[in-house]
Order: sequence, then structure tokens, then C-alpha cells
Amino acid sequence: MGTISLLDQIKISPLKQISAVGGDVWHALKSTDESFQGFGEAYFSWIELGSIKAWKQHIRMTMNLLVPVGTVCFVFYDSERKSFRELRIGSDSYCRITVPPKIWFGFKGEGLCNSLVLNISSIPHDPKEVLRMSKDEILFNWEKDS
Amino acid sequence: MGTISLLDQIKISPLKQISAVGGDVWHALKSTDESFQGFGEAYFSWIELGSIKAWKQHIRMTMNLLVPVGTVCFVFYDSERKSFRELRIGSDSYCRITVPPKIWFGFKGEGLCNSLVLNISSIPHDPKEVLRMSKDEILFNWEKDS
Repeated sequence: MGTISLLDQIKISPLKQISAVGGDVWHALKSTDESFQGFGEAYFSWIELGSIKAWKQHIRMTMNLLVPVGTVCFVFYDSERKSFRELRIGSDSYCRITVPPKIWFGFKGEGLCNSLVLNISSIPHDPKEVLRMSKDEILFNWEKDS
Repeated sequence: MGTISLLDQIKISPLKQISAVGGDVWHALKSTDESFQGFGEAYFSWIELGSIKAWKQHIRMTMNLLVPVGTVCFVFYDSERKSFRELRIGSDSYCRITVPPKIWFGFKGEGLCNSLVLNISSIPHDPKEVLRMSKDEILFNWEKDS
């Protein structure tokens, strides 16, 4: 059991939020950041308050996840070790989560409003590299904190 | 006067907004899009309702501008021809604006709330390639529509 869980390879990076007259500037990702694994696509996912989207796994894509609006609880699952890792980010705890391929994940909208997720992914969307399971195929207690 | 204004090189691309249970998915930019000129950095700029940020010019950066929250009026200025181009985008008119270098621009927060701009830029932020003028150095009637 000396090997490192895939979940330990998920990286959380605090990001600068720069005050500016008329509205702040919030960093997201630079090509010079260690988290940058190439640019394939950027897209937004809205997640409604209380809704859960789960489960998905990317075989090749590295995701860079940002939540500029609301709060999102991301849950990551290592199917070999049957272990979970839960990370909550949002406008009040503004960070980037970098997720390497081959990790199951789901997410839930929390906070006070619908939340906005930006994924800056290392490859363009390709349905052939996405595995899916229904919410009940990986048992996780989504209600425990909310 | 047969040459084309720089302002005509600004490109507006309608984007897919895909309905999904729990929250929609909105496209932003793919590496295979014609608008993609390389990835240097992605960052968010908040713009408060009624606030104006102006004027700035990038010497080398191509910007890809998205507004997933609120409504923003972008104003672009061709200093050779002394002409303006005004483009309004937001969550209700969801499009990408691709802006080549060497165009003066400013923007104003409109709609009902603070607005969120995502810029996916072709180079990382570099203060040496940014020119700035104060709001009053380029006269524009920011109040005419609001």
C-alpha cells in the first residue's frame, strides 16, 4: 500500500483576486502555471442550487476547475482504493482545482444561488474519452454537510 | 479609403448553450476554433453595474471575451479613423467577441447585477504590452443607451 492514491494528485491552487475600481480581477490559469497541461477547450457548466451531476471520468483530459459564482462541492473517487476526496470551492474560497485523468468525479451546487463552473481542459470535448455512471452506481452521502 | 478598419476584424461568434439536467453547459472556446490564437492566460474581470473601465489597448494580445453573468457593453475605438464599434453581450445574448491586438477598448457593466467577463487571451498578462488612457482621453457617450 506504498503507492500514492490518484486522489493525492488532485492539486488545489490559491489564486490572486486583485482589487480594482469598478470590479475586481480574478486570476484563473496561465500557460506558465505548473497546472497547465495544454489548452483544448474552455466551457462553463451551471449547477443549480441543490442539484448533483455525477458521475463522470475523463480518460485523457486534465481539468482545471474554477467557480467564480456560488459554491460547488466536488467529490472525487478512486475506484481502486474505494476512497473519496471532497473539495469545496467558490467565490468565497476562490481556488483552482487541477484534476488529472482517470478519476471519477461528481459535483453539487451549494451556497445561496446557482453556481458557475469554468473548466479549462487540456483537450477538446470528445465523447469517446468520457466514462459515465449514474449517481447511484457510486454510493456517496451527498447530503451530509448541506 | 479602400482599406478595412481594424474594427471590422473584431469577430462575434454565437456559442452553443446546451440544456442539461441540473444546469446548462455553455461553450466558450475550443483550440480548433478559428478564433483561437494560442492560450496565454484566462482571467475573470468583474464589472459593477454602471461602472466603466476604459481605455486599454493590447499591442500583442488577442482577447476572447465571454460574459456568462450580466450584460456588458464593450466599446472599441480605431484611433486612425476616429471610429467606434459598440458590442453588447451577456447571459441573454451569449456570444464570444474575438479582439485582435492594437484596438483601444473600454467596457461598462449593464443589466441588473454585477457582470462577469472571462478573457481567454493569447499571451499571459504582460504590463509592457498594455497601453492605457484615462476615460476622458477618448470621448465617448457612455450614457446614451442606459
